[in-house]
Amino acid sequence: MTDHDIDAGVVTQIASRTHDFSRWYLDIVRKAELADYSPVKGCMVIRPYGYAIWENLQRLLDAEFKKTGHVNAYFPLFIPRSLLLKEKDHVEGFAPQVAWVTRGGDEELEEPLIVRPTSEAIIGTMYAKWIKSWRDLPVLINQWCNVVRWEKVTRPFLRTTEFLWQEGHTAHETAEEAQEETLKILALYKAFAEREMAMPVIAGVKSESEKFAGASRTYSIEALMGDGRALQAGTSHNLGQNFAKAFDIQFQGRDSAMQHAWTTSWGVSTRLIGAIIMTHGDDSGLVLPPAVAPVQVVIIPIPRGSWKETVLPVCERIQRDLTSAGLRVKVDASEENSPGWKYAEWEMRGVPLRLEVGPRDIAAGTVLSVRRDTRQKAPMPLDDVTTCVQDTLDAIQANLLARALAHREAHTSEVSSWSDFRSAMEGRPGFVIAGWCGGAECEAAIKIETQATLRNIPLDGVPASGSCVRCQEASVASAWFAKAY
Amino acid sequence: MTDHDIDAGVVTQIASRTHDFSRWYLDIVRKAELADYSPVKGCMVIRPYGYAIWENLQRLLDAEFKKTGHVNAYFPLFIPRSLLLKEKDHVEGFAPQVAWVTRGGDEELEEPLIVRPTSEAIIGTMYAKWIKSWRDLPVLINQWCNVVRWEKVTRPFLRTTEFLWQEGHTAHETAEEAQEETLKILALYKAFAEREMAMPVIAGVKSESEKFAGASRTYSIEALMGDGRALQAGTSHNLGQNFAKAFDIQFQGRDSAMQHAWTTSWGVSTRLIGAIIMTHGDDSGLVLPPAVAPVQVVIIPIPRGSWKETVLPVCERIQRDLTSAGLRVKVDASEENSPGWKYAEWEMRGVPLRLEVGPRDIAAGTVLSVRRDTRQKAPMPLDDVTTCVQDTLDAIQANLLARALAHREAHTSEVSSWSDFRSAMEGRPGFVIAGWCGGAECEAAIKIETQATLRNIPLDGVPASGSCVRCQEASVASAWFAKAY
Repeated sequence: MTDHDIDAGVVTQIASRTHDFSRWYLDIVRKAELADYSPVKGCMVIRPYGYAIWENLQRLLDAEFKKTGHVNAYFPLFIPRSLLLKEKDHVEGFAPQVAWVTRGGDEELEEPLIVRPTSEAIIGTMYAKWIKSWRDLPVLINQWCNVVRWEKVTRPFLRTTEFLWQEGHTAHETAEEAQEETLKILALYKAFAEREMAMPVIAGVKSESEKFAGASRTYSIEALMGDGRALQAGTSHNLGQNFAKAFDIQFQGRDSAMQHAWTTSWGVSTRLIGAIIMTHGDDSGLVLPPAVAPVQVVIIPIPRGSWKETVLPVCERIQRDLTSAGLRVKVDASEENSPGWKYAEWEMRGVPLRLEVGPRDIAAGTVLSVRRDTRQKAPMPLDDVTTCVQDTLDAIQANLLARALAHREAHTSEVSSWSDFRSAMEGRPGFVIAGWCGGAECEAAIKIETQATLRNIPLDGVPASGSCVRCQEASVASAWFAKAY
Repeated sequence: MTDHDIDAGVVTQIASRTHDFSRWYLDIVRKAELADYSPVKGCMVIRPYGYAIWENLQRLLDAEFKKTGHVNAYFPLFIPRSLLLKEKDHVEGFAPQVAWVTRGGDEELEEPLIVRPTSEAIIGTMYAKWIKSWRDLPVLINQWCNVVRWEKVTRPFLRTTEFLWQEGHTAHETAEEAQEETLKILALYKAFAEREMAMPVIAGVKSESEKFAGASRTYSIEALMGDGRALQAGTSHNLGQNFAKAFDIQFQGRDSAMQHAWTTSWGVSTRLIGAIIMTHGDDSGLVLPPAVAPVQVVIIPIPRGSWKETVLPVCERIQRDLTSAGLRVKVDASEENSPGWKYAEWEMRGVPLRLEVGPRDIAAGTVLSVRRDTRQKAPMPLDDVTTCVQDTLDAIQANLLARALAHREAHTSEVSSWSDFRSAMEGRPGFVIAGWCGGAECEAAIKIETQATLRNIPLDGVPASGSCVRCQEASVASAWFAKAY
């Protein structure tokens, strides 16, 4: 008998992922205390455990923005109606889904304000004031904030009336620089998703009908969730001179002539938390990549004999050592629950690595480590725990990415006929790569008939060849289609 | 002749601090690019340089919250009217100054939503759901967010319709624990203001008429600005069971009986940036404490001879060394402006320490350092710059606190007669300590007749003695009065 033969005896009450993915998702959000419903329709509360994931995402992403020369600022929550109206496509895209402030204090407002659904209009107005000369360019500003879009159907993290995000807004001297920035951020998002979230993504350009309201070109990163549906995880827009013209962002160029700036905008949101759940989770609950996990290692003492005098101090020493090495560590020494209950609980909360420490382990000079991703158990020598833990966390991070990539590859198919496309989209289809004629009619027909949308046309995708999967005219691109969140 | 005999030839266009403090403040906000007016009435834009100060304040303060066991979360921006109405004093205090959302998308809302002016109502509602047993307590949650209060007269950072802040909301098992938390945070705020912002503050309890709408007791930290007016820099509220009763936050106690929780709330805001400006600034502009300065050291190459080959690499090496030591450093090698212009510009922006590097300095194995606070110039040996810079920054941080403390002491007087009180409040008075009977009538009369308000009654203040400065009845406390922002 070892220290670890303990019956869990716990019912985790999470729906089966295979059987009811949607229910499973909501169960995890609730049971792992990531978020909760609020009394405000469509708005969620992000609970501490969920918010700690967001803080990690923020910290890592913010460092990347700063490395690439961006700075943070803060612009008003409210936007006067008249400003929203300035860019024609933009207002058409957003007006139907904004919240309106019509009263302040005890007076009716002369001009109603919208609660920002995105900040191009207010930021463009300020840029027009700040940018006078080519010497003022580029302007590379990011903002972390809340935004509001009046949604009819909501789902925690994935689509809520209010959500948190970052929105970058940059202005440049030339079209080339704006395009370079747009693609630089797209690449930054892709690298971030793959490195930190262990989530492989397709980076590509959106079709005309899927682009941001007011943009010249929209790029996105698209990930494949565990149920075979795609999730747009981030977007980067080249706004051309559209907003500069609408908001009069003009500068004196090197040749002294006045000209309009070229602008971009880009963002990712708390939706990324939903993406993590649906990329890595399993029937036991959440599985968190070490890089973003609020708790990377949970240490559980086995309560045998005089464990508070013998086992607990060892747990606490390991915690100190790991914390000094920069890791996020928790010792669960509570006496209300059995070790088995704790194993199930922390597994459900997705903690990447568990260390079980009992008197026999200590006598043998080891602790037992249990990986969340593979359930693999391995003793670690007590005098080398820190290195072993760091190596194991690296291995988990790498394995989660490899596993997600294998899942995507197993659920990506290339088709050339319409009947193959249709059957590929049955059930839990994944990505389907197919030729597309470039026509919005075919795109719309595909959506109506199969619910699949054109996710994007990858930047490094295969060149167009053959014919449009829908109309059989010549193809202009190999596009990636999927049913999407 | 040295490398440093350069005529500035710059007019900084900042009003004199002595002559027109109010204009001087606004000039700094504008010229140092801390904030700008927006097209939304009462709302400001926090520009990157101002926001970087906020990021430093946030980072330092957030670490203190976490050290004391608090975690972050995020609650909805909107609060249904019915929830605001639940706590009688709270609604009376806040209803006159809230923004109302009455329309979402294309429909009128059945129940209007307010934009949070503070979050007790929405957080209390969630706590009622989460807290079931004494085992769930304490709940120690903080939130970093934006809030909106419909203000008629605004001033950047000090009073704006929208502002950024943190609001802590905790729930406890007993009255004693709630009181302990309230005072722990008050002490945390005081230590933070003094250590990081180099701003001495008085920590004390507010009078009944100045307390937070719905609180049992409000405590504050109060600082004295350069013009002799006080600024409330942070508040910590013991809410008793008021909100727990209004929102039905009940738990099963250790004795199995149901009881209401004891709650607290506390916050500081972007107002702290205004406090820094007005505590340390001088006629040349901003003076930033090193701990919160976005740029702690600016290095300016003297452009003589082949300086790009000789001087610039030395500047860049120093920057690398200082950055490796964890400092925030900028080299200003721009060729558009003269060194003199740069000196004035970075002084105006409050950078604590300037290093001037010229060919003769390098030949002598030194750089010239110039402190922002004292204007003191001193050569630093090139092979020991990092240590010298660190020591000098520490000295600047300490000197700013000492200077501000001396200013406060020079502008604090204790009076016992009403005529002395009145004359002390003329001009730029500072704090006036006086006996107070505890009556709201005297407090109101003092305010009407002198514009001075009772800032707080310090926790470590002198015991009550003598009589009320206004009515001559027996005094219950020695209170600190001041004209305030």
